[in-house]
Amino acid sequence: MTRSALISKIFEKKTFLCVGLDTDLTKIPKHLLNTEDPIFEFNKAIIDATHRYAIAYKPNLAFYEASGIKGLQSLRKTTDYLKQFDVFTIADAKRGDIGNTSAQYATAFLSPDGDFNFDAITVAPYMGEDSVKPFLTYPNKWVILLALTSNKGAFDFQFLKDEKNGQFLFEKVLETSKQWGTPENMMYVIGATQADWFMKIRQWIPNNFLLVPGVGAQGGSLQEVCKYGMTKDCGLLINASRSILYASDGLDFAEKAEEEAKNMQQEMAELLELCKHKSS
Amino acid sequence: MTRSALISKIFEKKTFLCVGLDTDLTKIPKHLLNTEDPIFEFNKAIIDATHRYAIAYKPNLAFYEASGIKGLQSLRKTTDYLKQFDVFTIADAKRGDIGNTSAQYATAFLSPDGDFNFDAITVAPYMGEDSVKPFLTYPNKWVILLALTSNKGAFDFQFLKDEKNGQFLFEKVLETSKQWGTPENMMYVIGATQADWFMKIRQWIPNNFLLVPGVGAQGGSLQEVCKYGMTKDCGLLINASRSILYASDGLDFAEKAEEEAKNMQQEMAELLELCKHKSS
Repeated sequence: MTRSALISKIFEKKTFLCVGLDTDLTKIPKHLLNTEDPIFEFNKAIIDATHRYAIAYKPNLAFYEASGIKGLQSLRKTTDYLKQFDVFTIADAKRGDIGNTSAQYATAFLSPDGDFNFDAITVAPYMGEDSVKPFLTYPNKWVILLALTSNKGAFDFQFLKDEKNGQFLFEKVLETSKQWGTPENMMYVIGATQADWFMKIRQWIPNNFLLVPGVGAQGGSLQEVCKYGMTKDCGLLINASRSILYASDGLDFAEKAEEEAKNMQQEMAELLELCKHKSS
Repeated sequence: MTRSALISKIFEKKTFLCVGLDTDLTKIPKHLLNTEDPIFEFNKAIIDATHRYAIAYKPNLAFYEASGIKGLQSLRKTTDYLKQFDVFTIADAKRGDIGNTSAQYATAFLSPDGDFNFDAITVAPYMGEDSVKPFLTYPNKWVILLALTSNKGAFDFQFLKDEKNGQFLFEKVLETSKQWGTPENMMYVIGATQADWFMKIRQWIPNNFLLVPGVGAQGGSLQEVCKYGMTKDCGLLINASRSILYASDGLDFAEKAEEEAKNMQQEMAELLELCKHKSS
């Protein structure tokens, strides 16, 4: 999906909600466990209930790999099912390796001929340029690079400060990597729990979309993130996983997920008004 | 596999060679492409030809994922096949995510009940402690954490120098993470192309095993790595992938792979004599 198509859809549907499909067999409603493919049945019900309110879906690979090959089959059914809804799809895979290996991961997740054909993949920056660039070779596909994450461990290394110029590691990741791609094919992961940093980050990367986890279960504020992180093109995909997927663990799980997604979408429709006042 | 079992096997077989199974459909001999499962047929032939000279096998997940679900089926057949040889198995997966997600990746690759049941997994450190620790919960299973990699991109971020104490990022990764586990469950990836650093690294982590890629196709020197990186317990797993797998692309590929592995094993048998002179 191109950047302009993504932006158009955001303003048409008045939402920048990304639903994270972290489908955990120990948390989904018990009655689904008797079906042939509980992961897919759950995902299908969640997608049916939320697609009017969401712009993107982000299956978290770990939750499928945990069920082995069977889990990957559920993932394939999920990505196939998503195609009819014309949404942006993200493989939350946090991959990254030497060049020839990253090229294989790119084939796995982004190739139109592959099993999944995602629009985007999350990538870890530790191994540098040649570990990221192979993901940028598919037209209209995206790298979403980890910069400042939402977890406690973000403070272990991401705030290491460069003695040369006082740059934090995550700042150096942003500055260096923005030479590797363009705002047409690179987004960044910035955790909502790091709201203080959004203003600075918008000085460093005024135009790139940000994928923002950490609103909801992890405690980040949607209002704060939008106040400082939004651009005239929206520039944000806000992820919610657990707060939507597990809004209820009963027979009404899809209904409750819909309510939760709808509430977020309504808040987002209002927040999109902020874009009119943004210069970049 | 426990550390003491690994060490015993290294000195019994007189080898610390790890064969990297980066099985690439575009590089394997053409005659195998007509078989039902070319990836597995190739791996099986390579394993049969090299297991007397190797202590470990390291399938590189990207190369299996690139063939989608079919590729994962080939991987499962490969890990099943490896079990009879009592070798150390490494999922070269470079995973790492927030705690609840890393726990799922650990299930996927390390769980004895899972499809693969590897002894170890490579993990990326960018997201810090809670992204690594969930991999340390399986008894006698290992995390192999990226520290100083063998590729050009290693210089993008891994040498960022901390203004507080002059530590490089990769040094901080070593120092911080050695608190998370022990030499019984944590190894580190240090590229052979970074031979200058092995002496320093052995001051920081005198006892942990190092997984060393980059000998062979990437140009690192086995002699140099052993001179500075070896410990009294050996302390090294030296990976070779392309130089063994693709020693020939003809009908004699397995024979040539065997020759290459045997040559490396013979060099290693001599190098193991160095261990007697090491104090730690």
